[in-house]
Amino acid sequence: MSSVEHAYAIIMAGGGGTRLWPLSRRRRPKHMLPLLDDATLFQATVTRLQGLFPPERILVVTTADQRAELQAQAPFLPPENYLTEPAPRGTAAVVALAAVVLRGRAGDQARMGIFPADHYIGQPARFHSVAQAALTLAGQGYLVTLGIDPTYPATGYGYIQQGEPLGEVQGWPAYRVRRFKEKPDLATAQQMLAQGGHSWNAGMFFWTVARIWEEFARQMPDFHAAMERLLDAWGSPRWHAVLADLWPRLRTETIDYGIMEGAQHVAVIPAQGLEWSDIGSWDAVWNLLPKDAAGNATVHAHGLIIDGQGNLVYGRDGRLVALVGVHDLIVVDTADALLILPRAQAQRVREVVQALRAAGQDAYL
Amino acid sequence: MSSVEHAYAIIMAGGGGTRLWPLSRRRRPKHMLPLLDDATLFQATVTRLQGLFPPERILVVTTADQRAELQAQAPFLPPENYLTEPAPRGTAAVVALAAVVLRGRAGDQARMGIFPADHYIGQPARFHSVAQAALTLAGQGYLVTLGIDPTYPATGYGYIQQGEPLGEVQGWPAYRVRRFKEKPDLATAQQMLAQGGHSWNAGMFFWTVARIWEEFARQMPDFHAAMERLLDAWGSPRWHAVLADLWPRLRTETIDYGIMEGAQHVAVIPAQGLEWSDIGSWDAVWNLLPKDAAGNATVHAHGLIIDGQGNLVYGRDGRLVALVGVHDLIVVDTADALLILPRAQAQRVREVVQALRAAGQDAYL
Repeated sequence: MSSVEHAYAIIMAGGGGTRLWPLSRRRRPKHMLPLLDDATLFQATVTRLQGLFPPERILVVTTADQRAELQAQAPFLPPENYLTEPAPRGTAAVVALAAVVLRGRAGDQARMGIFPADHYIGQPARFHSVAQAALTLAGQGYLVTLGIDPTYPATGYGYIQQGEPLGEVQGWPAYRVRRFKEKPDLATAQQMLAQGGHSWNAGMFFWTVARIWEEFARQMPDFHAAMERLLDAWGSPRWHAVLADLWPRLRTETIDYGIMEGAQHVAVIPAQGLEWSDIGSWDAVWNLLPKDAAGNATVHAHGLIIDGQGNLVYGRDGRLVALVGVHDLIVVDTADALLILPRAQAQRVREVVQALRAAGQDAYL
Repeated sequence: MSSVEHAYAIIMAGGGGTRLWPLSRRRRPKHMLPLLDDATLFQATVTRLQGLFPPERILVVTTADQRAELQAQAPFLPPENYLTEPAPRGTAAVVALAAVVLRGRAGDQARMGIFPADHYIGQPARFHSVAQAALTLAGQGYLVTLGIDPTYPATGYGYIQQGEPLGEVQGWPAYRVRRFKEKPDLATAQQMLAQGGHSWNAGMFFWTVARIWEEFARQMPDFHAAMERLLDAWGSPRWHAVLADLWPRLRTETIDYGIMEGAQHVAVIPAQGLEWSDIGSWDAVWNLLPKDAAGNATVHAHGLIIDGQGNLVYGRDGRLVALVGVHDLIVVDTADALLILPRAQAQRVREVVQALRAAGQDAYL
């Protein structure tokens, strides 16, 4: 499959995230971990984009403390394609920085595909196909999202309500978006699920530099002003100084709340069959791993499970983990911390992180 | 309280035991562990006997590989009081060796109290009192046992059926023993519990050298022959050679099966209020430890328990162990192995040990 003309991939690889504590930490965030196999999620993301974008058009937005490690993980990307935020300010700022760089490099008709560095996609060929369709639609002036069939009333995702059909694009049906609702409360999520015609937002976006620039101007004028000032410095020795001056003063905001909820001309392609996961919990990790006949998944551990079903044993260095008569447990064994909780309560990892933060035990964060 | 005349304590400290795996191992058996506080169970046993026996009359029977460590743990006992079995052959052989040494040192009217090195007694003053009474009764020619009120139909203990009263001995009522039944099956245990008049054998024995010699002669003539031959070598340079020749050829037998089940003139003192435990499982360890308001016991770990009750977290080096939403679990975290199982299934540790043994993974045993 040939790469798409005049299109760039932006990998968002700056986040922290606590949902996979104790394995993921502030200094060792999820996308830097070889969570599912020998490749880190960042490496898997870069690999997945190859063929769709040539290396010189794959950009990574990250932070100063992660940059060297990420460059080491994907050394075949040009060094200048690693963009460093002076201070992390959320995904809206990531998109803004990438838009400025692309406008400087390639002009405002360049198309951008935005990709989180820490997601899983089980069917990369289908992903290539749908991403090409999305980039085509982006060239027509839409902000394009990919929709995932919702399976339960999740409150951690954005919900996309389909509007009128836009016809087929390279074999994929596309729709206008009637409404984009980020992280609804449970009642609203249940209602949208019951109503039908909604999908989860897969967290990937496709648009031209011009269109997203326009949305920043309309919805986030403070960001737009910073983008214009930064663009003025493009190609000049002032670039880093201007960036270092502007970025720490931005407010922290996500692209979902800052732009998508109020955006115009939004489209969605229901992206069925991707086997997509944002790997947002240890339960999701268990879901993605191979299992024994009793439904136990064992990683990096010498697992010895007697009369136990549905457990995840995430170990280290082949250390022996013996379970007897326990079911549907998550056991995560790291050098300095051990976590045990039921798979059905996997989200409660955050309570542990909150308790450690409240106690000032930063060494564990 | 003054020590008892012409009486000797024999501490049996040679055992292995797998019920507290992965903390207890072949080379680090239970009595060598600081399981409940900073003292090892062996040290606690020696401490408990002080005041009852002077140090020169406290003997330890152990194995060659444990001897140096035990001497280091109780350096105030005379070195010659550490008796080493050339090969461990069960508790009958331990008693036999101690009887020969005591007969050589002190004659056949010396009284022996036999004490496991790995039990817990919460009320040491009551223990002193009942042990003195038992030694008094032993001086009258009885094989004396201490009885524990049974609380459930255990199949791992010996059962003692009370016979006719022998009157009070130093404030403790004593009885002839009608029947001594070691490790009954469940149906028999249930029947004895329902019938009443039975107690568990606490694993401590009191008798004169002459009386136990007589029982060996009557019930275990092969052991008796070895004892006579070894006694012939008492005080001679041949002692160690004779011991090394005889002991490996003994069969392995317990004092309970070999002597107690068929013994004559057995007495029992119901030893109420000792707060005795043989610490025979991780559940028993949980029982003996202080707990938080939710019934969680945490040892050697930095425990962080959210919405969890009745758990035992047995850690190491203050490593963080975080539990969320789990109840009545045992978590034992050692350097090379982690064990997780329900407290109610604590006995199933043996299945792990059996599986490791079957797989030839001796490093974990």
